[in-house]
Amino acid sequence: MADFSQQLAQRASTINLNAGPSPLPDAALLTAAASLLSYPQTPGMGIAEISHRSAAFDQVVLDANKDLRTLLEIPDNYRVLWMQGGGLTQFAATVLNLAAWYRIKHQLAPQDDVEGWYAVTGSWSKKAAEEGARMSISARKVFDGKKHGAAGKFTGIASVDQWDVPQLEENARKPAFVYFCDNETVDGIEFGGPGSAAAFPFEAFDPEVPIVADMSSNFLSRPVDVSKYGIIYAGAQKNLGPSGVTLVIVREDLIVDLDAAVQYGGARVPAMLSYKNMADSNSMYNTPPTFAIYVCSLVLRSLLVSPPLPLPSPTARPLAPLSDFADQKSSLVYAEIDASSGFYVGTADAATRSRMNVTFRLPNGGEELEKKFVKEASEKGIKGVNGHRSVGGIRTSIYNAVTLEHVKTLVAFMRDFQERNQ
Amino acid sequence: MADFSQQLAQRASTINLNAGPSPLPDAALLTAAASLLSYPQTPGMGIAEISHRSAAFDQVVLDANKDLRTLLEIPDNYRVLWMQGGGLTQFAATVLNLAAWYRIKHQLAPQDDVEGWYAVTGSWSKKAAEEGARMSISARKVFDGKKHGAAGKFTGIASVDQWDVPQLEENARKPAFVYFCDNETVDGIEFGGPGSAAAFPFEAFDPEVPIVADMSSNFLSRPVDVSKYGIIYAGAQKNLGPSGVTLVIVREDLIVDLDAAVQYGGARVPAMLSYKNMADSNSMYNTPPTFAIYVCSLVLRSLLVSPPLPLPSPTARPLAPLSDFADQKSSLVYAEIDASSGFYVGTADAATRSRMNVTFRLPNGGEELEKKFVKEASEKGIKGVNGHRSVGGIRTSIYNAVTLEHVKTLVAFMRDFQERNQ
Repeated sequence: MADFSQQLAQRASTINLNAGPSPLPDAALLTAAASLLSYPQTPGMGIAEISHRSAAFDQVVLDANKDLRTLLEIPDNYRVLWMQGGGLTQFAATVLNLAAWYRIKHQLAPQDDVEGWYAVTGSWSKKAAEEGARMSISARKVFDGKKHGAAGKFTGIASVDQWDVPQLEENARKPAFVYFCDNETVDGIEFGGPGSAAAFPFEAFDPEVPIVADMSSNFLSRPVDVSKYGIIYAGAQKNLGPSGVTLVIVREDLIVDLDAAVQYGGARVPAMLSYKNMADSNSMYNTPPTFAIYVCSLVLRSLLVSPPLPLPSPTARPLAPLSDFADQKSSLVYAEIDASSGFYVGTADAATRSRMNVTFRLPNGGEELEKKFVKEASEKGIKGVNGHRSVGGIRTSIYNAVTLEHVKTLVAFMRDFQERNQ
Repeated sequence: MADFSQQLAQRASTINLNAGPSPLPDAALLTAAASLLSYPQTPGMGIAEISHRSAAFDQVVLDANKDLRTLLEIPDNYRVLWMQGGGLTQFAATVLNLAAWYRIKHQLAPQDDVEGWYAVTGSWSKKAAEEGARMSISARKVFDGKKHGAAGKFTGIASVDQWDVPQLEENARKPAFVYFCDNETVDGIEFGGPGSAAAFPFEAFDPEVPIVADMSSNFLSRPVDVSKYGIIYAGAQKNLGPSGVTLVIVREDLIVDLDAAVQYGGARVPAMLSYKNMADSNSMYNTPPTFAIYVCSLVLRSLLVSPPLPLPSPTARPLAPLSDFADQKSSLVYAEIDASSGFYVGTADAATRSRMNVTFRLPNGGEELEKKFVKEASEKGIKGVNGHRSVGGIRTSIYNAVTLEHVKTLVAFMRDFQERNQ
């Protein structure tokens, strides 16, 4: 292994709280760095320099799929696809694939409308609904967080009895899908995990309607009951790997030949957005982003082999340690906010605040004080804590590669900063 | 810098002739490996772990664009876009964007047809024409290499007087574009460079019609007169960088708001495929594949600062050394084939054989002998010489990162193999 002592020393004194792209585990990066020059299975050729159709790269994808299936307990009737284009591409791809599935299933006439229902809980689900509408479906908001929050801001998620879910008549046409974003990276708002009171209200929707979830920013941070979903997707660049690859987990019966939907009014969809093309080719419909997938495979393996906390019990679900870890870390920051007597004020309702992206303001000092916070944090080696450019404030993103020590250092800085500035 | 002596020794004894993903320069990979752990402009955070909207990454893209513009002499009225999805995505994106441009320009009625003309010279342009047809344009083949070649195979490019270019009446509607693939990676067929008799016949087409070129596999291998093109694109994974990023160079006046074309019959196009969205956001409409772009920036810089051959004259075009280099290397292999008395037989016509992908067969021994060739080459450290799975045979891909010494070793092996097996 190469000697990266200087780089590792720099890493050891840096706390990377970037919202995405985000920190990755040291060990995975060390292995990836060496493999860039020479991949052990293809000595003399780096992992980014071999054919995606070689036996060596095939094995990378096989291993990554296997580890992902183990970690997320993915049922056999779901396919794992590695795609390009990020969440924004999936905003269109989910709609185009599911509209085709729906048109074929119901043998629609070309002029027939297709509805998609969106729970809009933050900036990303809002964008998803807009892109859905651009793709010629009727995008209906069954919840609008901007109306729920004060001052037209996204602050949380109402309980489902306050949502605007249409009650369908006996023979009424159902929506083609219900869409939600599991964790809103910009706004720091997250649905609860399985069993929690703040979990996504699956029970409010017809079980025949596929549920689509964008899990880009909380993927692999807790167990998921995959069988409740039609499609789950996640851009890699938070908990999983470098940017440039997107995981799509899709139930097999929803995968259709898009061209077969054209006679029922389906759109002409670029071949690269077809789940069927990706599934039939094992994600190699063309050259995939091989290096990015390889790094994801290393991260998946590390989560499986050396989770940050031990399994709470021998029968615990594989992602339980990561859930405990996320709870532990985010609780420390929220506790500091809640104990600050208003010096720090969280932007999200307590019940649905994110374990990944802790967003808060410093209301006493306004933007000037927030700028000072960001600057002094950076001087202490705590990087990337400015809020998203669209909302301002502070955002500390605590993904899987952020350690408990990092968070303790952050909290100590917050306390010290408050003492000096209140 | 890290000590990668073992990996570098392995690289030194390996000749990587993969068709794509393909070898990258050692120096670029060494820098990239160290930057994965800690990028010098953001110490303690790797290049894949920082925000794409950070000043540090912004500079990466600025530098890459500047170096690319210098190398390719890109005029000011062209935009450089970094996109995802590879050539296959561009098969659709070029058509969708240009059809929108054309519909707006001619204020078409929704039922009006749009034509795209394709010069089909090999497997990739054939696929491009098929995808164009899927995107609801009339894809017309102005040349079909399968009819030109013997036994229905792609073997070369006829001179333009043998093409099927429609002579348009005075007021006839023109095609929205003319499409060609500059180098056919699978079939080893390439158009000539500027001024060559085998150059793409621009003069055969109305100068108002944008010319679209897929340069995925010969990008940065010779000077290009960019002003002759409407769109040039290239997947990075041959001469430029890792897979997962695609360069698109597009003339500004062809960039339109796709939604504005809907009233003229334009399709609803996913936002991520819109050249306007990418141009308006400096390729950051969402999170781009940051690491892949960074490696491309290193390769571009190395081509500019330390080209493989000196500039032939002080006034020579910046890519002239790479053109000379490609000529020098491929000539050695073709000379060996031509001198083999039929032991090796090139699959492409001499006038349009590729400087990047040298494809040949061993007719005396059939597939068995070809397998033996691949196996023995591999044992000598010469990797990746099997032909594409769709056509078989041998393919030695000689991209920019392959050295003259590598090619001399390949040729010596070919000669030795012939002596032992003829």
